[in-house]
Amino acid sequence: MTAILRGNILHTPAFGALEAIPRGYLVLEDGVIQGVYPSLPETFARCPAEDYGDALILRSFADLHLHAPQYPMLGMGMDLPLLAWLETYTFPVEARFQDPDFARVVYRALAEDLISSGTTRVAMFSSRHTDATLILMEELERAGVTGLVGKVNMDRNGGAVQEGTEESLSETLRWLEHCRFEHVKPILTPRFTPSCTDGLMEALGRLAAERDLPVQSHLSENVSEGAWVRELHPDCAQYWETYDKYGLWKKGALMAHCVHSDPREQEAMARSGVWAVHCPASNVNLCSGTALVREMLERGVPVALGSDIAGGDQLAMNRVITAAIRASKVKAMEAGGAFLTVPEAYYLGTAAGHRYFGGGAGFRAGDKLHAVVVDDSTMPPPVRELTLPERLERALYLMDKRHIRAVYSEGRRVLVRGGGDQE
Amino acid sequence: MTAILRGNILHTPAFGALEAIPRGYLVLEDGVIQGVYPSLPETFARCPAEDYGDALILRSFADLHLHAPQYPMLGMGMDLPLLAWLETYTFPVEARFQDPDFARVVYRALAEDLISSGTTRVAMFSSRHTDATLILMEELERAGVTGLVGKVNMDRNGGAVQEGTEESLSETLRWLEHCRFEHVKPILTPRFTPSCTDGLMEALGRLAAERDLPVQSHLSENVSEGAWVRELHPDCAQYWETYDKYGLWKKGALMAHCVHSDPREQEAMARSGVWAVHCPASNVNLCSGTALVREMLERGVPVALGSDIAGGDQLAMNRVITAAIRASKVKAMEAGGAFLTVPEAYYLGTAAGHRYFGGGAGFRAGDKLHAVVVDDSTMPPPVRELTLPERLERALYLMDKRHIRAVYSEGRRVLVRGGGDQE
Repeated sequence: MTAILRGNILHTPAFGALEAIPRGYLVLEDGVIQGVYPSLPETFARCPAEDYGDALILRSFADLHLHAPQYPMLGMGMDLPLLAWLETYTFPVEARFQDPDFARVVYRALAEDLISSGTTRVAMFSSRHTDATLILMEELERAGVTGLVGKVNMDRNGGAVQEGTEESLSETLRWLEHCRFEHVKPILTPRFTPSCTDGLMEALGRLAAERDLPVQSHLSENVSEGAWVRELHPDCAQYWETYDKYGLWKKGALMAHCVHSDPREQEAMARSGVWAVHCPASNVNLCSGTALVREMLERGVPVALGSDIAGGDQLAMNRVITAAIRASKVKAMEAGGAFLTVPEAYYLGTAAGHRYFGGGAGFRAGDKLHAVVVDDSTMPPPVRELTLPERLERALYLMDKRHIRAVYSEGRRVLVRGGGDQE
Repeated sequence: MTAILRGNILHTPAFGALEAIPRGYLVLEDGVIQGVYPSLPETFARCPAEDYGDALILRSFADLHLHAPQYPMLGMGMDLPLLAWLETYTFPVEARFQDPDFARVVYRALAEDLISSGTTRVAMFSSRHTDATLILMEELERAGVTGLVGKVNMDRNGGAVQEGTEESLSETLRWLEHCRFEHVKPILTPRFTPSCTDGLMEALGRLAAERDLPVQSHLSENVSEGAWVRELHPDCAQYWETYDKYGLWKKGALMAHCVHSDPREQEAMARSGVWAVHCPASNVNLCSGTALVREMLERGVPVALGSDIAGGDQLAMNRVITAAIRASKVKAMEAGGAFLTVPEAYYLGTAAGHRYFGGGAGFRAGDKLHAVVVDDSTMPPPVRELTLPERLERALYLMDKRHIRAVYSEGRRVLVRGGGDQE
């Protein structure tokens, strides 16, 4: 079936580039993009069109690092240092996901919050609980969120949510067996080096190779964590090697934070095709430091963005994008160099994530559509007609879910709202 | 007339202190606070009560530095350096306020946006235009926003919005003559030293003394501005002395930014009772630097917060409060020391501003009520009953206008929404 979307189309054909097609057309065949056109080709003249008027049609957001079970603690405990925060909030909260009914309520709310904020692709940590993880995947699938979810593995230093090594492995196998979702797939998730014994790491590495499974974890988030990892693995010169040693440092692995990754660690990422997931809001909230995003990009490290809730306080990725700009400005004031521009940060919060999942940098023929339609007509009255790049910038800084008119995920329209209902 | 508000009352009796009264009572007589009670005194048992149920009753927000005519450019031009930003956006946009009809549209939208975001007290820059400034004051008055507004004075280096010295003074007098508003009063507003000739500064200083008018301006926002001021006033060792020289450095003067104020300049502020208005969002967006808020407070400088739109990208003061926390964390990571806690930053964004206008640090008997009622029931489902301080923190990080149920300004309820209408 042919479908046509009309509106002001904005996307990034490459990092730092921004293309605007005023009142353009996006033509879909069964949800797959056929092309983007400034005016409608004759062939499609008779097809029904969804006209979004003066609204903006943008790539949807991709959130490549967040902790689903921390959603109930969003915006709390920000004054605590990392370890106290983990013990006061994170671990006790995660322990509650033993209860499938509680998991259902929280994960349904989270999935709806993601879609209504325009996030359609995720790489997500669950808790260690197999059943709750399956419920999470089911709720994401139902809401229209696509991507990867991992049952967390942690058999040491895990307080109330730790599991035994054998249990961790057998539950991982049970979980994988039940992962039968169309748009939400499993990703192996050793929480981070300090929470996994060598035996567990080794078994997970083997599993990743045998079943060709992707991997996600944390890397070089803060200074004391780095020291701890060196104590635990005196044979490894750097943090990343503790993953590499067990076959977990593989192409497409997602490593959250990388705040303290030095040039050698960055080069190891670039060489192996390991992704850095920059989580700017979390890094400030937890006083972790300021990641060297431009330096990583220049070294060839693939970089995407993550909300990292609940270390991050905002689920909406437009806020994470502007947080990335601010973090880069802090870095630029401190150490010189150029901050991230709006098109660059927009790329990282949208295109980079879509590319991780095999999509194009811009709206590309052959890709299933992931898009968000933004009605900015209720934003402050401008003094003149704004350019589309200006409107994109303003949307990233000011939009919230009231401005989102429609969301498309994997070719399907998963949310639509009547126009003019914004306050 | 007696009115009683019931709900979870949270306020700050002093900087850093936080008092929570679960399901408490605020008793008003003609809008004036009579007392705050954990249970209702017998005397009032027969008075009608407004029961806000489980909602939070907080001090309303006070925004002590913002540029009303920059509202149309909110969230745009953030990639530009300060001077290019002024020339591309600020000056051409401000020039449009020559047109009273345009001013009416923008200022009505701004006034409504302020109230629906819970901001009831402001100190605001208008543009140089007398008529538009009066329209701004009228619209604030109508919406229920109280405080101070200044017609801007600028007779040099002002591009399209500059005025002549004589005109600047005669228009100031004409403006003062027409300032007859109950809750919105005039404040003298030399834009900043580089935009005012010595003659204008001198005349404004005289006017401030003769009519006992308050003063607001900018101070030590960025490094190149500081160098420029030193060039213009080689006889002044420091920026603040250029105001002091003309009688504009007086008790209650509001000085925005103070990012680069050194100990000597800070001591001059403390000594004279001059306020620093910290604008954390703007300071990052424009790469101005990170203000030494705790250092200023420890030196006895009175500090309040400002959104500084449109250098700041968010009008809602809860976002400015969390930006102040983040800025202080950046400073703490860079230079050590303690960051601003949630109760401290909440104080700066609410109580400090109310104190500027003569109110108490907390809800105080004898003050007219300024409050915002926040319904947080649609926030992520928690794992256990949250404490009121936790709910305050969460509200500051997550709330937007959808969560605001009612706003009280100067004893009057200026906004009310039905419960349960949040999406």
